[in-house]
Amino acid sequence: MKATQYQGNQTFSVIEKEIEAPKNDEVRIKVAYVGVCGTDVHIYHGMMDKRVQIPVTIGHEMSGVIDAIGSDVTNFSIGEKVVVRPLDDRKAKPSDKGFNHVCEELKFIGIDSPGAMQQYWNVPAFTLHKLKVTTDLKLAALIEPLSVAAHDVRLSELKKGETAVVLGGGPIGLLVAMVAKEVGAQVIISEVNPKRIQKAKDLGFDAVSPIDIDLVQYVSDKTEGRKADVVFEVAGVQPALDMMCEIAGIRGRIVMVAIHGEKKPVDLFKFFWKELKLIGARVYEKEDYEKAIDLITTNELPFTDMITDVQPLSNIQQVFENIDNNPDGLKVLMDCQL
Amino acid sequence: MKATQYQGNQTFSVIEKEIEAPKNDEVRIKVAYVGVCGTDVHIYHGMMDKRVQIPVTIGHEMSGVIDAIGSDVTNFSIGEKVVVRPLDDRKAKPSDKGFNHVCEELKFIGIDSPGAMQQYWNVPAFTLHKLKVTTDLKLAALIEPLSVAAHDVRLSELKKGETAVVLGGGPIGLLVAMVAKEVGAQVIISEVNPKRIQKAKDLGFDAVSPIDIDLVQYVSDKTEGRKADVVFEVAGVQPALDMMCEIAGIRGRIVMVAIHGEKKPVDLFKFFWKELKLIGARVYEKEDYEKAIDLITTNELPFTDMITDVQPLSNIQQVFENIDNNPDGLKVLMDCQL
Repeated sequence: MKATQYQGNQTFSVIEKEIEAPKNDEVRIKVAYVGVCGTDVHIYHGMMDKRVQIPVTIGHEMSGVIDAIGSDVTNFSIGEKVVVRPLDDRKAKPSDKGFNHVCEELKFIGIDSPGAMQQYWNVPAFTLHKLKVTTDLKLAALIEPLSVAAHDVRLSELKKGETAVVLGGGPIGLLVAMVAKEVGAQVIISEVNPKRIQKAKDLGFDAVSPIDIDLVQYVSDKTEGRKADVVFEVAGVQPALDMMCEIAGIRGRIVMVAIHGEKKPVDLFKFFWKELKLIGARVYEKEDYEKAIDLITTNELPFTDMITDVQPLSNIQQVFENIDNNPDGLKVLMDCQL
Repeated sequence: MKATQYQGNQTFSVIEKEIEAPKNDEVRIKVAYVGVCGTDVHIYHGMMDKRVQIPVTIGHEMSGVIDAIGSDVTNFSIGEKVVVRPLDDRKAKPSDKGFNHVCEELKFIGIDSPGAMQQYWNVPAFTLHKLKVTTDLKLAALIEPLSVAAHDVRLSELKKGETAVVLGGGPIGLLVAMVAKEVGAQVIISEVNPKRIQKAKDLGFDAVSPIDIDLVQYVSDKTEGRKADVVFEVAGVQPALDMMCEIAGIRGRIVMVAIHGEKKPVDLFKFFWKELKLIGARVYEKEDYEKAIDLITTNELPFTDMITDVQPLSNIQQVFENIDNNPDGLKVLMDCQL
């Protein structure tokens, strides 16, 4: 079979290797599609060389079909369509209080252990979620990032009739916007890249640039002065941190989706004054995966438009190089069947 | 009657003036005691000269007895003991979403309009909460700051058996600690002033200095590694902002009680990583006042020890000068009956 390996120094190789039998508690998946995540791009750029064990097969946004089953595995059959929830929480402790998806000793499969960018992938059976026979495997590669969005929206407690502002119109921002709209909220996307604004508009969203317009006034006008009930900070830049505090109305909830590697100035006075809430959100829980699977399977949201390129696995080097050269693209999938 | 006036330039005067009849919707209160709040000290220091209308009578932590009643006022009788919830929310709008205690056009009585540091005080009847006949009027002057603490603890959703760390052992910090302990939580107070640490210990609290010990390790040891379920940031300084993110365990809730006038660096990565929540909390709602009145009336917490000085109203200038010179003191009351 073909397997890809990140070799360090912005280099991927494609190797031939033996297909391995799954261990007792594992299944072997014939991988269908793998999406490229921002984290994968970080790895490609060498930002996580201290964490990954080079050479390493990465990838965690995937779909596939069960190909073989370990001797201790029940409840799964060869031929079933599945996705992997890539969280290894087997070292969770009582001090994690049951929040195992963010437990202190969490291992992320595809970063801390081998990932999906290969033709066959052996994973512990507890990571699996079953798909329907009818679920499209290409769209199913979006389930992992869609689960992030479902988690963010669930933690925000966004309700029908409320207004959500999404700061940042990249792949995660758009998925958050879709889930928020599906809840029944009014959704406004703030994005600076004109092509991404156009893409968001094409997907049916109210999308504006905070450079071109006074976003606070815009949101205020759209809400009879209430401003945002929920803000999703998905941009990860200082202007978004400043904007989130301005744009949130009284008792507004701000979900911190972006990863800020350094301490950043925050207007804590506005948290006090308007009784704002900041909600940290990371990965997903089981119910978020189920929600995402439902959404993908019913396919009533414009998921297809999220996929801007599909390439054979063997093109991995070019795929990562192209992502760097094309900031307007959304989700790129690798087809592991080719 | 005697009334005090802030004249600007760190100066109070005590004047003689006529006792006025209450307007139709007002009652006249014969003021018993008025506590000095940190905000009053800010006003004295000229920090709020742009907001207050000099000369102005300030003060909002008070207790008293109804002395006269406006013609439209029902449900109140002369001689009843009362406290004032000093929030004038009459300009609340639908865009405030019912959170009138922090409505955009909120006026704070005792800052934006005349306050309680006088012998008789006319206030709108809707601001009143009745006390029991048995409620001690000296302790009742603590109801307003105790309501702040009750609000903070309520918004934190602190539960019995959880661990709360209070960063800052001043008057509000101690009241927060008392309410948290009354909920049934394990409470740890972090404070740098040795006299305040001793005072907190005298009040029965586990109080430590983050300069002398490794506070993160201390809290971790006291919680079998869970760390703080709730952190109250009452200190208002950068080391407390850094500490709150370290000391909070997974899904920890951090209540922002302190007022940070400027944007401050915050470790947003920890909010993401541990799924922390930051909860802005300001003043109080009706139910917080009722809670504080209950606590003061039953008087099972060490409220008496919170009052470190009682002075006649006419000593107001000296009272404010002494507060500046005595950072170890807790609550100072002025007796308006003298």
